[in-house]
Amino acid sequence: MQITITGISNIAEVQPGNDLPGLILSGCEASGVELQAGDILVIAQKIVSKAEGQVVDLREVEPSPFAKQYAEKWGKDPRQIEVVLRESKRVVRMDKGVLITETRHGFVCANAGVDASNVPGEHMVTLLPVDSDASAARIRAVVKDRAGVDVPVIISDSFGRTWRNGIINIAIGVSGLMPLNDLRGQKDQHGYLMHATVIAIADELASAAELVMGKLAACPAAVIRGYNYEPAEGTAQELVMDPARDMFR
Amino acid sequence: MQITITGISNIAEVQPGNDLPGLILSGCEASGVELQAGDILVIAQKIVSKAEGQVVDLREVEPSPFAKQYAEKWGKDPRQIEVVLRESKRVVRMDKGVLITETRHGFVCANAGVDASNVPGEHMVTLLPVDSDASAARIRAVVKDRAGVDVPVIISDSFGRTWRNGIINIAIGVSGLMPLNDLRGQKDQHGYLMHATVIAIADELASAAELVMGKLAACPAAVIRGYNYEPAEGTAQELVMDPARDMFR
Repeated sequence: MQITITGISNIAEVQPGNDLPGLILSGCEASGVELQAGDILVIAQKIVSKAEGQVVDLREVEPSPFAKQYAEKWGKDPRQIEVVLRESKRVVRMDKGVLITETRHGFVCANAGVDASNVPGEHMVTLLPVDSDASAARIRAVVKDRAGVDVPVIISDSFGRTWRNGIINIAIGVSGLMPLNDLRGQKDQHGYLMHATVIAIADELASAAELVMGKLAACPAAVIRGYNYEPAEGTAQELVMDPARDMFR
Repeated sequence: MQITITGISNIAEVQPGNDLPGLILSGCEASGVELQAGDILVIAQKIVSKAEGQVVDLREVEPSPFAKQYAEKWGKDPRQIEVVLRESKRVVRMDKGVLITETRHGFVCANAGVDASNVPGEHMVTLLPVDSDASAARIRAVVKDRAGVDVPVIISDSFGRTWRNGIINIAIGVSGLMPLNDLRGQKDQHGYLMHATVIAIADELASAAELVMGKLAACPAAVIRGYNYEPAEGTAQELVMDPARDMFR
């Protein structure tokens, strides 16, 4: 099996209200990629958030006393801490200057996904999309309408991990495929019945795409070709662990 | 930027003492892949462990009273629990029938990487390589000697994650590249100085390769071509978080 991953550059700076599917399709054309059946489109969260207006001007944020106190202790911007708390439904860890929270989507990550990089204007931060699965579904529908091909869409963002250094890209929005490939009940080549093997393919696809997207180049999307998936109406919510199973709440 | 990932199948069942680099190079030839400078070779932990004889016959394991007690409570094989404990230097969580431990390498994972899938014989389990960075370095050296090209080697294994369902492949052994791409101090396209961005590219490369390797097909290796890395003497130890920074010990 062989897969190819192509970075889609040539996407102009995205502004709130922009036609993101249109910008991506133009980017594909400029990058020499014509979308085909079987392709998977991976899009950086940052441009989805920008297009949806999920951008906050910190000068308009009044931090709470709690945010101020924490920010002062750790040398952070109290307005940014305030935004992180507003984007969170629960604090998981708040120590050593690191703030790990659970977002409204159920994602556990640093700073609730609030981020100042790759945003023009030094007071501006982006938030995660309000409903990143719905964002993926909308983009997929418009791409299908205009390009005539139904391509799964993954919205990716970089998350840290417990116990390991560095961030990797994972899927925060999915439309058009199952994010988990459940092999339980199937047998390996030696006849061993697999009882625990569920592969988070949407996260692996997001990580694979990051390799061509990067953080410094203006390459906020990628097309993965040749990966054998089954079309289905999955969502990134299926990647969120049930609290009853979670041992690191 | 474009990368291609090609699965290397046609690798015979690996036995203890087998010449693994030789089997992989034959597999490359049979899969139509001629290794080139710039390629990255990703190899499944399972075949590395088998070649190194890191295989245990559970019939020869005498479980401790502690292992027996835990196994009985959760319906597990006490001999397998015993092997997991012997492979661990610390238990991180032991609850709900799940045993998450820290291995001698510092990796935190379920069952210390002890696994019964893809091993012939129903009483057999594989352990992680004793020193997976050394394994990667040895394979790289032999491949360089025989194929005349110095190709980074990543040994990958599938790990679960906190807060998210499903497993993904990550790097447990690295030779020939830096596993972390440290962008701190660099500026994004808007001039924002990145202060926290360190990307675990070895883990992303392992996840990308998993997409062509799978668990059911006999495809235990992959070649990644076109990824722009800097050759360097990095190891997977750099991916292990310093306990002083770790908030989920």
